[in-house]
Amino acid sequence: MSDLEVVSYRPERDQYAWTFGGAAPVARIRTPVVLDVFTEDAFFGQVHSENDLVSEVCQFPFINPQTGPFYIEGAEPGDTVAVHFVSITPARDWGVSTTIPLFGSLTGTNVTALLNEPLPELVWMWQFDRAAQTCRFTARHGDFTMDMPMNPMHGTVGVAPANLEARSALVPDAFGGNMDTPEMRAGTTCYLGVNVEGALLSLGDGHARQGEGETCGVAVETAMNTVMVVDLIKGAPCPWPRLENDDYIMTAGSARPLEDAFRIAQTELVRWLADQYGMDVMDAYQLVSQGVEAPLANVVDVNYTSMAKMPKRYLPGGTVMGGAHARLKELAAQYRG
Amino acid sequence: MSDLEVVSYRPERDQYAWTFGGAAPVARIRTPVVLDVFTEDAFFGQVHSENDLVSEVCQFPFINPQTGPFYIEGAEPGDTVAVHFVSITPARDWGVSTTIPLFGSLTGTNVTALLNEPLPELVWMWQFDRAAQTCRFTARHGDFTMDMPMNPMHGTVGVAPANLEARSALVPDAFGGNMDTPEMRAGTTCYLGVNVEGALLSLGDGHARQGEGETCGVAVETAMNTVMVVDLIKGAPCPWPRLENDDYIMTAGSARPLEDAFRIAQTELVRWLADQYGMDVMDAYQLVSQGVEAPLANVVDVNYTSMAKMPKRYLPGGTVMGGAHARLKELAAQYRG
Amino acid sequence: MSDLEVVSYRPERDQYAWTFGGAAPVARIRTPVVLDVFTEDAFFGQVHSENDLVSEVCQFPFINPQTGPFYIEGAEPGDTVAVHFVSITPARDWGVSTTIPLFGSLTGTNVTALLNEPLPELVWMWQFDRAAQTCRFTARHGDFTMDMPMNPMHGTVGVAPANLEARSALVPDAFGGNMDTPEMRAGTTCYLGVNVEGALLSLGDGHARQGEGETCGVAVETAMNTVMVVDLIKGAPCPWPRLENDDYIMTAGSARPLEDAFRIAQTELVRWLADQYGMDVMDAYQLVSQGVEAPLANVVDVNYTSMAKMPKRYLPGGTVMGGAHARLKELAAQYRG
Amino acid sequence: MSDLEVVSYRPERDQYAWTFGGAAPVARIRTPVVLDVFTEDAFFGQVHSENDLVSEVCQFPFINPQTGPFYIEGAEPGDTVAVHFVSITPARDWGVSTTIPLFGSLTGTNVTALLNEPLPELVWMWQFDRAAQTCRFTARHGDFTMDMPMNPMHGTVGVAPANLEARSALVPDAFGGNMDTPEMRAGTTCYLGVNVEGALLSLGDGHARQGEGETCGVAVETAMNTVMVVDLIKGAPCPWPRLENDDYIMTAGSARPLEDAFRIAQTELVRWLADQYGMDVMDAYQLVSQGVEAPLANVVDVNYTSMAKMPKRYLPGGTVMGGAHARLKELAAQYRG
Repeated sequence: MSDLEVVSYRPERDQYAWTFGGAAPVARIRTPVVLDVFTEDAFFGQVHSENDLVSEVCQFPFINPQTGPFYIEGAEPGDTVAVHFVSITPARDWGVSTTIPLFGSLTGTNVTALLNEPLPELVWMWQFDRAAQTCRFTARHGDFTMDMPMNPMHGTVGVAPANLEARSALVPDAFGGNMDTPEMRAGTTCYLGVNVEGALLSLGDGHARQGEGETCGVAVETAMNTVMVVDLIKGAPCPWPRLENDDYIMTAGSARPLEDAFRIAQTELVRWLADQYGMDVMDAYQLVSQGVEAPLANVVDVNYTSMAKMPKRYLPGGTVMGGAHARLKELAAQYRG
Repeated sequence: MSDLEVVSYRPERDQYAWTFGGAAPVARIRTPVVLDVFTEDAFFGQVHSENDLVSEVCQFPFINPQTGPFYIEGAEPGDTVAVHFVSITPARDWGVSTTIPLFGSLTGTNVTALLNEPLPELVWMWQFDRAAQTCRFTARHGDFTMDMPMNPMHGTVGVAPANLEARSALVPDAFGGNMDTPEMRAGTTCYLGVNVEGALLSLGDGHARQGEGETCGVAVETAMNTVMVVDLIKGAPCPWPRLENDDYIMTAGSARPLEDAFRIAQTELVRWLADQYGMDVMDAYQLVSQGVEAPLANVVDVNYTSMAKMPKRYLPGGTVMGGAHARLKELAAQYRG
Repeated sequence: MSDLEVVSYRPERDQYAWTFGGAAPVARIRTPVVLDVFTEDAFFGQVHSENDLVSEVCQFPFINPQTGPFYIEGAEPGDTVAVHFVSITPARDWGVSTTIPLFGSLTGTNVTALLNEPLPELVWMWQFDRAAQTCRFTARHGDFTMDMPMNPMHGTVGVAPANLEARSALVPDAFGGNMDTPEMRAGTTCYLGVNVEGALLSLGDGHARQGEGETCGVAVETAMNTVMVVDLIKGAPCPWPRLENDDYIMTAGSARPLEDAFRIAQTELVRWLADQYGMDVMDAYQLVSQGVEAPLANVVDVNYTSMAKMPKRYLPGGTVMGGAHARLKELAAQYRG
Repeated sequence: MSDLEVVSYRPERDQYAWTFGGAAPVARIRTPVVLDVFTEDAFFGQVHSENDLVSEVCQFPFINPQTGPFYIEGAEPGDTVAVHFVSITPARDWGVSTTIPLFGSLTGTNVTALLNEPLPELVWMWQFDRAAQTCRFTARHGDFTMDMPMNPMHGTVGVAPANLEARSALVPDAFGGNMDTPEMRAGTTCYLGVNVEGALLSLGDGHARQGEGETCGVAVETAMNTVMVVDLIKGAPCPWPRLENDDYIMTAGSARPLEDAFRIAQTELVRWLADQYGMDVMDAYQLVSQGVEAPLANVVDVNYTSMAKMPKRYLPGGTVMGGAHARLKELAAQYRG
């Protein structure tokens, strides 16, 4: 379609951001716009083999590079940015996963601080068959291999936080960030409330696939070529991240302990239904209680993330968020021609 | 099939159990056996209309009646009981859900003790269309209704606990109990480790359907007619509940905070894979991290319950738990003729 | 002096209880009464040296033996038992502490389930100087020793739980039990709400001293000779344990996560002040917020326990709990003659 | 004493900082130095009466103003800043406490997100008798008043965080910040590890007094005139805040859930003893388990803070942190002449 602007951006090595907030914008964009970007993997591309230990080849805090931030013209606090993922395509034919000392859900960490010895630090190289859309696990001990379907996604997409803060790219919170949910895939629209002028959108942390909860703390990490349609919804607040695809509306809550992440996602969903459909809050509470799906996203990051997914077929008719998902899908279809 | 014993049991009003452990067995059974039972709803059938408030019509602690316990001949600590659900059929054409003061995930409770006023106590009557396999939500305010598919399940199935304890039927723990997972449906086999002689198996808490997390604390509660095939696996321990259906093996962890429930389910799954397939624990950790699905069961009960579901297609070949699931399915097929 | 009954009880090896609830009473007592009892240490006296590992010499679930339960004549649900500790005296000149695999606050456990290797299992023998009222730590590595003052206390005192339950003697909850607070010392009155007829009071788990939080999970465990005055307060409920000494009123909250234990203790204290003094709840909230002391009791047991201590000098005049503390002190003085 | 530099600093209204990290230094200081500063109260001095509701008179995020940051010449990552509080003196004869909607430990919050109605927003004005060193509570309902001793302290003292972050002044973490511990009083030395060049030390949030846990979320807030001696300890890391007074060494852990805050404080204490005295880690674990005091600091902030206090009399001889506490006390004595 003729008039939809396309912005392509492939950062140089020194052009990545490492925080949400506190980084200067790399470009200014006018919405609606197609963003066609490259994202480096969470280890800045420095783990290439089983011998490349994160604790040796990575230099903290230069972990989880973000492509961006993009300054969205006209975005102000009280608005919402909508990011529709058109395609998320691994840029390499391999990915990497690892254990990292004092990180992961089944080990003592810097915060769940224990006296036990840490787990061994190990790297697993995953080989991709991009034609078959599979990725291959190879055991480090023994000769077991297993092909799993690829489900390319972004662990991290966010805007600058409120309260004058700058947060590490490892943090998920109300501003989005490192939520690590497999729902952040092509076909999904992600809504993020704007906290500062220009919103300062960035993304990264591509995963060829990830289990729910991201148990060991690391997915099948890889670089991505990603196309999004980005729009701005003026005057529509979004207190916590919302996601939408053709079948579900979703909320993401990020906090510790994990029940607080659950509570955030669920209250946000209940209140969203009540606001959107004029439903009584208690009725919305009941409807959600019987209809919701509640997969975990991550139980490893600075905050844990819990998803609340409501099937659209259980909702009253009509669209949410001003119909942005359908509109952005249409724009995506125009873009792909 | 001629030689599979069928035990039918429909308790009188004074024959229900209210605890796991501490209740005398209602019958002794020899495995394998078909159990064909009736279970009363969690409110002991005392909520019939929107005017029947739980706080008024129910008499604590006589909540969540259990059918059983059944003494399983030959069951000893170190063995595992396998319960394959053949059918779970609502015994009425209506169910009930409610809010209960100081109960539910989005309110202060007796444990998350706050000074806020409690939420209103409300009852929702759900009407079933058993032919269409749907249940109808009717809003208390306004005239909104919504049909959802039925997904009949048991919130509660368990054996007597270890450590000389007797626990309320509201508790989920290593002995099973009130896990409130929608996975406990027809077609699923549930494995429970035996803690006392005879195991003392019981079940109840039928739900026509339930969202993941059981947000308000109460599902669509109804009485059930349920058929199970029960078997005993000698010399096979099962430290936390395991579930299996045709597509998944699953573990259930129950604890607070919720991340501990997650940790239990995930370590149990990792160790199960390592033990079953001779896989290195770290390799199993990696395989689970990328392959697991992690829906929540409940975030409302005395312990919260987190599920870890591993698709069988991601596992090495061969069966788990000595092939009990297939064997019990076969017995179920014989029973149904 | 003349008419205060004294009941002495030193259990045989087979007369201990291992649960709260579910154990038959060892004696019936009429209040007020002096109870003069012996309590065995938490390891049933089976750890005598650094070579006696708990995992080898103890037989689960026979851990934490309780002296009792005592059936209190006339005690009914809605009443409160008051236990005033007159003296708690180590019955030996040594105590023992240990690490136990998968137990303690700074290690993975059965519930905070991790893949790390457990900590080493070690025993420390503590020598007492009963004249000087000190106990001596001796390092296992090197030759460091340190004398600390004795502060004899009972980790465990409780009544039968509500809800038809029987709980392991390792559990602290609303019925008291294994709270492991150093506040449970001579001079303190402990109030416990009655859940079943006869209350079924028992106690054990003597500690020569204990740090707040009981970090490694085990205090300086020893057998005790303990004298209490026990009374019954009719018609006075006590939803969670309360303690009182000459300087403080206190509440004990037991739950997980630890913030819920804190919330219980603090709301109970706020509501106690509001009820006792006719104070507005919000005013009581403010008074507590500025006046309370909040030491931890344990962060290791089945539930964690948080204490809320309000100095009496910050309270309006008058007594609490009907003046039971002063009355029992007076009876204690009579007893000692 | 002649050669100890004294830096006095009373910020203008537009010179306060609202974050740790991300704010330009207000002055550069050479250590050792006496800092004589004014700190405004947490509400920026805008609550003067019971009618000044925080939600109306304060403008988020301009809450909890920090005096500073001070750039410490020569401070680099791997060093530690030592701040010895010489005097903390209320600058007014009144202080203020309040409830704030969705804030505090006994209410639903933005994170412990519930559907309950929030608590009422109320202000309590506290009157000080600075001669008697008392502060007077006046109930909002009824005519009850109560004098409590003043215990002037700073809720907030910190340096810039690591990982390129800027955090709200409401946050406590490894960099110090809003720990809200009553231990931060005159006579105490606070050690903070340096994360960025110049350290960027700031402080604020004076409390005339505060209960442990800061139950309602707000202490008796007041402006302070505060004198500190600040020094730099080169080449001595301090991973989490440490405090020292004449009687105790202490660690502060800040995290959620609260047990993780406890774990941090306790492991830091155990490891500090092991490192400082060459003690075996397991011996240090045992010594701490029996000797530690564990008062809570706050259970309301972005992270909760738990203190671990070890009496010096239970430690081997010798000083900690290179004897900084004694040295700074000596400098303080010189300053006071």
